Formats: sequence, C-alpha cells, structure tokens
Amino acid sequence: MRDVAIIGIGIQKWGELWDRSLRDLWVEAALNAIKDSGVDHIDSMYVGCMAPGLFVGQEHLGSLLADYLGVTPIPATRVESACASGGMAVRSAFLEVASGVSDIVLASGVEKMTDVDGGGATYALATAADAEYEVFQGVTFPGLYAMVARDYMHRYGLTREQLAQVAVKNHDNGSLNPHAQYPMKITAETVMNSTMIADPLRLFDCSPITDGAAAAIVCPLDLAKKLSKQQPIKIAGIGAGTDRIALHDRKDLCEFRATVKAGEAAFKMAGVGPEDIDFCEVHDCFTIAELCVIEALGFFERGTAGKATAAGETARDGKMPINTSGGLKSKGHPVGATGLGQIHEIVTQLRGAAGDRQVKGVKRGMMQNMGGSGGSTVCHILEVV
Amino acid sequence: MRDVAIIGIGIQKWGELWDRSLRDLWVEAALNAIKDSGVDHIDSMYVGCMAPGLFVGQEHLGSLLADYLGVTPIPATRVESACASGGMAVRSAFLEVASGVSDIVLASGVEKMTDVDGGGATYALATAADAEYEVFQGVTFPGLYAMVARDYMHRYGLTREQLAQVAVKNHDNGSLNPHAQYPMKITAETVMNSTMIADPLRLFDCSPITDGAAAAIVCPLDLAKKLSKQQPIKIAGIGAGTDRIALHDRKDLCEFRATVKAGEAAFKMAGVGPEDIDFCEVHDCFTIAELCVIEALGFFERGTAGKATAAGETARDGKMPINTSGGLKSKGHPVGATGLGQIHEIVTQLRGAAGDRQVKGVKRGMMQNMGGSGGSTVCHILEVV
Repeated sequence: MRDVAIIGIGIQKWGELWDRSLRDLWVEAALNAIKDSGVDHIDSMYVGCMAPGLFVGQEHLGSLLADYLGVTPIPATRVESACASGGMAVRSAFLEVASGVSDIVLASGVEKMTDVDGGGATYALATAADAEYEVFQGVTFPGLYAMVARDYMHRYGLTREQLAQVAVKNHDNGSLNPHAQYPMKITAETVMNSTMIADPLRLFDCSPITDGAAAAIVCPLDLAKKLSKQQPIKIAGIGAGTDRIALHDRKDLCEFRATVKAGEAAFKMAGVGPEDIDFCEVHDCFTIAELCVIEALGFFERGTAGKATAAGETARDGKMPINTSGGLKSKGHPVGATGLGQIHEIVTQLRGAAGDRQVKGVKRGMMQNMGGSGGSTVCHILEVV
Repeated sequence: MRDVAIIGIGIQKWGELWDRSLRDLWVEAALNAIKDSGVDHIDSMYVGCMAPGLFVGQEHLGSLLADYLGVTPIPATRVESACASGGMAVRSAFLEVASGVSDIVLASGVEKMTDVDGGGATYALATAADAEYEVFQGVTFPGLYAMVARDYMHRYGLTREQLAQVAVKNHDNGSLNPHAQYPMKITAETVMNSTMIADPLRLFDCSPITDGAAAAIVCPLDLAKKLSKQQPIKIAGIGAGTDRIALHDRKDLCEFRATVKAGEAAFKMAGVGPEDIDFCEVHDCFTIAELCVIEALGFFERGTAGKATAAGETARDGKMPINTSGGLKSKGHPVGATGLGQIHEIVTQLRGAAGDRQVKGVKRGMMQNMGGSGGSTVCHILEVV
C-alpha cells in the first residue's frame, strides 16, 4: 500500500448563502484546493454529500460537478454516510491513491441546505436516522441527542453549565476563523437562556443549518514534493465504523461504538495512541456529542469530559485542544462538507497557518466525523512529514 | 496493487415488491452472496443506491444495512452515481481490497422504487439529469433518450423495427432468467404497438420501475481459493468516466463519451480489447441506449448496431451476446442494484451456471453500467482464472 498525503486544501465562507447554488459553492472550494496544491490536473474525484435529492432536487453529483469543474471525462463518485459523508469521501480518495489506480484525487464535500424551509431541512436530516422505527414515530435529531444528554447527565452528574461550555469554547475558536458561519463569542448564559429545542438541549447547543463546501487534493506521499510546493501532510491512519442505527437498539446511549471502532482502526494504522495526538476536530453536531466523542476516542475517561471542558482542558491552550476551527457549532455544519472542513482545519494547523487560532508546535492532528446519532463514523490521523 | 476476485454472488427475484422493504430486499441479496461465497465474516461493505431519500425517506444506508445484516461495527459506505451506483460500489470494493486495507468486502446495490407513485418515481429518477437546466424545463429521461433516438435514426437510418429488436432479444433472454421482473417473450409488433411514451420511444422501449437488490463478495485473488470453494472470477479491469451531464452540452448526442472512457480504461487495465470479450451486459435503460453503448465499447462500428441487432449478432448465439440476463428491459432496473445484477449475470455465465441461457465456452465477460443520460459510466471486465 502506498503512503498517501494531502497537498492542497480549499474552502469558502460558510453560511446561509441564498444567492449561491450547490454547484457554485462546490466549484469555488474545489478550485481553491487545486490552486493551493498547484497541480495542473486531477485523475479522479469524490464528492461527499448527504441528501442533495431532498435539499435541491439533484442527485448524480459526480457527473454534475465533474462537468462544472470542467474535468470530464475523469471518474467521479459521490459517497454518502449522512453527516460523515465528507470524511468518507476522504477515505475513498485515500483508498484509490493507496491502491495505485490513481495518483491525484480530489476529495470534496458539499451541502446546500437553505433552499428548503426549516421543516424541509429537518426532514432531510432525519433520513439519517432509522426512517421506519425512529422518524415515523416523530423523533428528529435534537430529540435523539437530547436523550443521550439526559442519560449522560443522570449517570455522570454533568451540569447544564458544563454542557454550555462546549459551545462557549467552540464559539471562542470560531471567532478567529474567517470561514465560520457564526464567528461571534458567546457566554454560558447565552446558551442557557436560548430557546429550548429538546430538553435539555437549547438553541446554542445545536449546530446550525449551513450552505458550504470544502475540498482537498490527495496524492502518493512520494509524489507530493514533485507535484506541489506545499508541505505534504501524511494521512497516517484512517478508520471507519458503524453502530446500530437506532438509539433504542444500543446497550449504552453514551458510548459511541462506531467512534470507538473508527478511532481504534486509525490509531492502529498510524501506530500511535490518543496520547500522541496534539489536537482533534470532532463532530459537535450537538454539545453533548463532543463530550461523548472525546471520551470514545480515549482522550478523556468516561464521564469526565464535561468537567475537563469546563476546566479549559479542551481550549486552544489546554492539554487537548478540541475543535480549534470553531467546530460544527460555530463554523457551521453543511453536512456533506463537514468532514472536509475538519481536514481543512487540521492541515491549516499543521502548516502553522492558522493565524490567531494557531496551536503552537502541533505535528499530528486527528478528525472524527459522524453520521446520524453515531450510526457511522470515520476518523483520520494527519501528520507533518 | 493486489489482484482482486469475486467469490460470491447473491440476488433475489426482482419486481414490484409491495410487501417488502428496502432493508428486506437488500439483506436477502447480501445473505445470498455471503452464503454463496462461504465466508464467515466481511471486513467492510459498500451499498450502491441512487435516491433512497426520495424513494423511501431513508439516507445513511451504510449504517442501516450494516445494522440489519448484523455486521456492525464494520465500515459501511454508500456510493451514488445515479443508475451506475451499483457498478461504482463494485469499483469502491475493488479499490479497498486492491489497496490492502481490507480483505473481504461486500459490494452491493439496492433500490426500492414502488413506495412512491409513478410521478414520484419519475421525479426521483429525473434528479440524475441536470436539475436546473434540464429538469426544471420539464424534460425527464424518456424525453432525453428520445432525442438521442431521433438523432440516431436521422443520421444512420435506424428503423423503428430494428430498434424494437433490442427489446425482443432482451425479453427472449430474460424469459430464461428466474430473477427477471418481466420474463415473457415479446415480438417487434408488441413494441411498435405499445403506448407512446416520448416519440419515437414506446412503452416497450423503456426499462421498468423495479424493486430489487444484488450483491457480490470481493477479496484478494490469492486468498480466493482459501476463503471459498467457488471458482474465483478475477476482476481483470475496471474503468469509470464522466461526460457533460446535460444533453445540450454534448457535441454528439449518440456518442456516449463516459462509456468510451470507462471502456478504454477497463480494456487497458485488463490488457485486452473489445475483440477479446466473449459477452457483455450493458445498460439498456432504453432500447436506443444499448445500440449507442455497444458502439461506444467498440463491439460495433458507429451506426451499425441496429442492423447487427436485427441480424441476430447480439443474441445468445450471435458473435457478441449482449444482455444474456434479459438486460434492464426484461430483468428489471432497480437503479442502484442494476450494476450488481450485471455482475451476477457475468459471474453466473463464467461459472457455466446460467442454465438454458448459458453461452458456451465463455471465459471473459464485461459489464457497462451508466448514470443518467450517460453522464457517468463504470465498466468491469471479469475473467475465469
């Protein structure tokens, strides 16, 4: 298996972009990644996108976007794993390069979520849960994660204020990210006084509806220096996993088994453990998710992540910086693009190019991108070489 | 790159299966493939499916189907390339095995199309075209392929009866396939007297709306004999390509460029040419598509495929048997499953297990699976080893 590196990244400013279409957003991010890498062509491409049929009446994004980027007749594939679609697109690009079938592969993600109304978006997102056994009964994602939060609070004594600190920390980071949808600082009071969505989760516990795209150029590590002037960032470990899709089928609501599995696989391939990771981007679709995930990855003991967050251990200057980009909460959550947004942040940090939010001396970063209520997860470990 | 083989195939009887859900169909096909191969576990899985969000309100099929097959926490990825989703799932499984990341990978496809009414199905399928420049103007796939047919008839003198012979031949083959949705023989008169859909295409020029699933087990060739008692079938060549998604952007309506590119790539990897292929399954979503495709793959000169079909050259006993399974026309077209259905037929023929429709002495078969009006295509060449 060939070693694989990332030599280019691209993104655009995420937000409610009513004057832009899916293809516009995606082409901007893809061109930015190509320009960043300096390559003059790509051999194949992957698009992570969750539900373009429901959001904008368009499937077949591989053909559409290869066309609008002007790169036909190259192979183009869409991959979907709900909100983990972007991370899975990176995994697919890795496999194609590692196999030797292609050299320069574009991994990308996009979602255009604001062309439907709020109810339409909630319906589209709910298709990531079990349609027949969860959604038809009326539950949507805020309700599912609220059940996880209630269970966690009950078992581990997590306080409402500790939970709020996840959002406070991520907005603090996001205030320094020029691509973030909501780059304003907030306080714990803002979170605790915001509109109730699904008890105990309030508006500021939830990631927003976002239009956005991001992309990366992947190639064999031994070609990286020849193809690009950028510092190559090695994809040292990849891992993916699944869990029972419906919450009621799981033995432990707070243990995200797909994340445990994906993390273990990525650590094994990279030959490192949680203690060797300098910083991590995780899937904070709701505040409670961040806590469960950083425990599932082994950064914190079960039941301790809330206290650790309130003590500043996950801040930029903490012992394990989490979501320096602002996370899904502040940067935004265009579901298919989110995994690539995480890759964008890790590469930016590893290049030392994160400006005011730069974490000093980082050499190895990790990302965790999750579908639904944790039914699927993909992790990647990136290293400076 | 490791050599890759298929050691198991599974399918169920396709049709309008109102008493079965998407997960039921898929699990039956997946279990059949696992049983056929004899493996006791799988390491990873891919699901090709075009539009489950629009057809049944369910995305995130990787997690859902890994769950219902009882194989969590293995990685599970859905891939989509409209009606070529199944073929792309095989390509993804090939890449994962070739790279060395996984050994035993399930490639599968499924579509449940009859839980919406006819208008809903036509809308869902139309999302494979360019939503903004084709579909919003009112065109759907019968109309798009009708334009191709008109152009072909005008340029090459194709007659209405020659076109009908594609359907006659495919129904003749399908009458011998126990999994076919419409296993009845028809005559050219049946086609030419059937309801007009989009001039010149009539009802019997069009593939049907189908519920169905199919699957295959893929592994390294050098492990095949150890893992399974089945004759290993090598995936000797894979190829994929794209074209401008909208018909109005193409220079030549009758030249399917994505198919030309995908075919060339597959031939190159396998080290063979069209003359070395013993039989081929192609994407006859409409009768005219079969003619354009078998020309794009190099089996027939441009403009001659209609005459060749009428002369019996593509029949089971012709010089180049095409769609011995019955094709999309007779076997059915559950869009995400179609590519795996083609793989099922090729492996069955190469094993010499096709019963009354067996083509004698075949050693090398090819499949061509196409998205939309040819915006994407994937080809695989399979060989007896």
